[in-house]
Amino acid sequence: MRIKLHQTHHTLADFRGILSYLETISVEKEDTLHIFPELFLTGYPLRDLCLTRSFISSYQEFLEEVKKWAKTRKTNEAFLMGGLHYTCDDKGLPLHIKNVIWCAQNGELKDIYTKQLLPNYDIFDEKKYFTEGHENKIFEFKNKQFGLLICEDMWSSSTHNCDPAEKLFSYLKKEKKQIDCLINLSASPYNLGKQEKRIARSTELSKTFGVPFVYVNRVGGEDEILFDGQSFVAQGPDIVLSGKAFKAEIIEFNLTKNLQTASEKYSHLEENTWESLFSPALVTKKKVAELAPWSASDCQEMKEALQFGLQEYAGKTGFNKFTVALSGGMDSALVLTLIRLSLKKGQSLEAIYMPSQYSAGLSYDLSLALCTNLGVPLYTLPIKFYHATIKNNFNDIFGAPLEGLANENIQSRLRGTLLYARSNMINSLVVNTSNKSELAVGYSTLYGDSVGAISLIGDLYKTEVYRLSQYINTLHPGLIPEGIITRPPSAELRENQKDEDSLPPYERLDPMLEGLLSYRLSMKELSDMGFSENELKKVFNLYAKSEYKRNQFCPIIKVKAKSFGFGYRIPITKEQQIYF
Amino acid sequence: MRIKLHQTHHTLADFRGILSYLETISVEKEDTLHIFPELFLTGYPLRDLCLTRSFISSYQEFLEEVKKWAKTRKTNEAFLMGGLHYTCDDKGLPLHIKNVIWCAQNGELKDIYTKQLLPNYDIFDEKKYFTEGHENKIFEFKNKQFGLLICEDMWSSSTHNCDPAEKLFSYLKKEKKQIDCLINLSASPYNLGKQEKRIARSTELSKTFGVPFVYVNRVGGEDEILFDGQSFVAQGPDIVLSGKAFKAEIIEFNLTKNLQTASEKYSHLEENTWESLFSPALVTKKKVAELAPWSASDCQEMKEALQFGLQEYAGKTGFNKFTVALSGGMDSALVLTLIRLSLKKGQSLEAIYMPSQYSAGLSYDLSLALCTNLGVPLYTLPIKFYHATIKNNFNDIFGAPLEGLANENIQSRLRGTLLYARSNMINSLVVNTSNKSELAVGYSTLYGDSVGAISLIGDLYKTEVYRLSQYINTLHPGLIPEGIITRPPSAELRENQKDEDSLPPYERLDPMLEGLLSYRLSMKELSDMGFSENELKKVFNLYAKSEYKRNQFCPIIKVKAKSFGFGYRIPITKEQQIYF
Repeated sequence: MRIKLHQTHHTLADFRGILSYLETISVEKEDTLHIFPELFLTGYPLRDLCLTRSFISSYQEFLEEVKKWAKTRKTNEAFLMGGLHYTCDDKGLPLHIKNVIWCAQNGELKDIYTKQLLPNYDIFDEKKYFTEGHENKIFEFKNKQFGLLICEDMWSSSTHNCDPAEKLFSYLKKEKKQIDCLINLSASPYNLGKQEKRIARSTELSKTFGVPFVYVNRVGGEDEILFDGQSFVAQGPDIVLSGKAFKAEIIEFNLTKNLQTASEKYSHLEENTWESLFSPALVTKKKVAELAPWSASDCQEMKEALQFGLQEYAGKTGFNKFTVALSGGMDSALVLTLIRLSLKKGQSLEAIYMPSQYSAGLSYDLSLALCTNLGVPLYTLPIKFYHATIKNNFNDIFGAPLEGLANENIQSRLRGTLLYARSNMINSLVVNTSNKSELAVGYSTLYGDSVGAISLIGDLYKTEVYRLSQYINTLHPGLIPEGIITRPPSAELRENQKDEDSLPPYERLDPMLEGLLSYRLSMKELSDMGFSENELKKVFNLYAKSEYKRNQFCPIIKVKAKSFGFGYRIPITKEQQIYF
Repeated sequence: MRIKLHQTHHTLADFRGILSYLETISVEKEDTLHIFPELFLTGYPLRDLCLTRSFISSYQEFLEEVKKWAKTRKTNEAFLMGGLHYTCDDKGLPLHIKNVIWCAQNGELKDIYTKQLLPNYDIFDEKKYFTEGHENKIFEFKNKQFGLLICEDMWSSSTHNCDPAEKLFSYLKKEKKQIDCLINLSASPYNLGKQEKRIARSTELSKTFGVPFVYVNRVGGEDEILFDGQSFVAQGPDIVLSGKAFKAEIIEFNLTKNLQTASEKYSHLEENTWESLFSPALVTKKKVAELAPWSASDCQEMKEALQFGLQEYAGKTGFNKFTVALSGGMDSALVLTLIRLSLKKGQSLEAIYMPSQYSAGLSYDLSLALCTNLGVPLYTLPIKFYHATIKNNFNDIFGAPLEGLANENIQSRLRGTLLYARSNMINSLVVNTSNKSELAVGYSTLYGDSVGAISLIGDLYKTEVYRLSQYINTLHPGLIPEGIITRPPSAELRENQKDEDSLPPYERLDPMLEGLLSYRLSMKELSDMGFSENELKKVFNLYAKSEYKRNQFCPIIKVKAKSFGFGYRIPITKEQQIYF
């Protein structure tokens, strides 16, 4: 029997696109089982969209079309498609919404399985919308038996009170039954290191059940969340087939008869859900903890993920022009380079350099060198005159000089204003250039350098920004001028300003932040990892008082297990003393 | 027996403040039961804070202090206090967190009841963090029996699969037992009309059980969410005692012996959770649906709620100065007036007027008149010159004029920039002046008039902004110059611009938006309510394409059942066609 894994890529609620995808699936002579991702029929995550009447009625109409389509298919085919099942009250309001598998077979469309484990941590809010199932399902097609799971169902951890895969395993043991294949329909968000975890768990389940494990994941960028595809088939310890990352694809697999033997015992996932979110991004064996280093292939994956995320956002919001504010520093240089290297036909990119009185001549030279290397037009819009005029006016009007933080921030905000004027002028997408270290300690100006429609590198610590830049230069030698990589980071908002005047060096700051953010560690615990208490106090203080800035920040393309954004929910107003 | 309802007001995680509150409770001679709000010991909503190690260890230490304190109390006292109960794994990571009632009695501190119904709709994410209980509890103190509930436990609706109050009712019937009193510890967010719903349900439950119903609610403003207190005791159909709104208070009640008779049948709440969120804010009986009008007491409540929310945010973030950008229009006038009327000793307020070439002379005159009435200093910071200079520079640099939307937005962003320069100069809180109608249709400039630390009237439709302003003028005749109330709304970003050039008149726009946002109605359903299809198309289009602006907006003080902010979660990138 042929199994086709449809690693699909559709915009949320693009019912026309989804229907036309189904309609163009060609009929095979052989018996063929088509498998689609979780919530293929609707897209994911829908959030409140699944509660709006417009969505519900469009979806119900669409399901009628899918029913008609199902009638046109042959009896040697079956289709397992993730979708929603609504139960409404007499006013037409949803009472229960289930995350199900719709099966098209023999001219009929039925929902045959309801997701049992609804993830509700981090970015996941599934218990907000969905009602869980309680029954396993063994699906039969052409005398073969398929165990069904939806995404989280394979990831039961010690914080859950149900393990759907274990239930299935025990049932099969008890009834002395066998299945031929285990299938998981997924909508699994990407982060660095995620695929490794998926494969580890899938091969484990394949060995446990003694059958091939088929994993189908969707492709897409939904605001901040990326779905990477990378569908695969695990057979015992091996991955016998795998799909591309970040690309729609159909991959095929022949299900043969030779079964392996199931294990005697079920293999539990030894994790705590709140902890299992976190990739092991800290190396704690050294004297002072360090960030886990990125290999070249990590860098390549990261580059592809970020570029995919940007193109998804631009494509879905209808932009084909990009504008980036260039400072002569590392962050904006990497952002410009990543965009340039991802440009598609019909797209354009430009850079704006906005020097103030504190900008070094080198900043311009490096910006120009980068733009020349990339073939990107560079516009220079000095803010000196506006800045000086505003300072004079403030002195006249308020009888006091604009100095200190006020004098620094005004420069940054003038840049934000001019950048957006240009963006409005040509209808381009402003890509934000902040990094995760800055965001964590609030080392940026709200409405200034923090502006942008989407943040490309807001999930990368500063040292990772350098790492990725160096990697790009190994692919394209000299593309990013060496001077940008080697000069000390500076915001250039006052004379001789350096990041290190205000912050610990990034090689210490970044692992400290990873401990604080991803592991939610306290100062005490971080101090036990070798960090200095003085630096920790400074960092916790900056972190605690900058929550309001992160609150108004744009979506950040999520490439880590724990990121700022939708899955990070810390109140602004609280007693800060608990951190100290 | 004396029952004391502690309607408390503490900052999230202010363990020192909470302990010192407990320590100053005087000992009574009479038997006294002290009742506190839900999560009194921690504050609410904590969101991810309850997962951070700093919080967990501070809380555990604090609980030890509470245990010591419990030993100091007398045997004629008992204390029922909402708090958290952590179960951790061997690494000290939380496995399960329960929202419980801690009881201090006879020198001991024990958790005696776990919340069974965890709200998880709208702003509520309790299933993300908490593990639900499954057992009812009857608490005994001095030969009296108390039924215990925590907040949502009394609100089971048709979308839930458990009704804790009904379970208790059935148990009592079955065992032929009686209780003397029903207690609900709450942390119930405020919205207009909420108290009426609480009272309706509580009197119903009091009648059903035939005992007094004691409802204790917390006070506080937590970013966007307000807790209004208004604790009360219901006895049958009557409220025999009630606490103030938005103020900490201890109210006392004597529990006597004379019981009423319990009903034969339990009285269910006839609602759908997703629908029960929504107050009936639309009057649909007319030819075209209208917003439900506000009575004078609605206006007074709204005024108090907004002022309380602002003061909470300012107090907890440490600001005692406020800056407001005044335009000569209704929104900023109301914001300035509300702040002025809420100023406390040591606080100050100033207004900044920033005219462009399109600002009418009347705008200044009205701004000045308002500031004179309020005794607020007014600074004028013209943007004409900056605007003209930028236009010239753009022409020189980009070879094209700044016109249309770009020319409108630059004015708004220059204002945002100058406003924040002033705010940085004196360390003042910038209060945003956008209203809900504008936010819904994106009729504002990102980083321009949308700036601010907190939005005071972002949950009020434009017609409600007028209504509240008129109400304030009935309290303080002439305080807001009549000219501000009567002039047609305009953004003044181009010659002779009027809101009605781009939007339907607010008396039609606002109820349309209420249907779209609060009831999540489709165009079809709104059209059936009498709205014109052309106007609906325009409004849905503006709404759908402005999601990105709302995504970067500041916290909005929530005074409605359904608001923009944390409880509103709509993806930016999606197929917009579903709306049409």
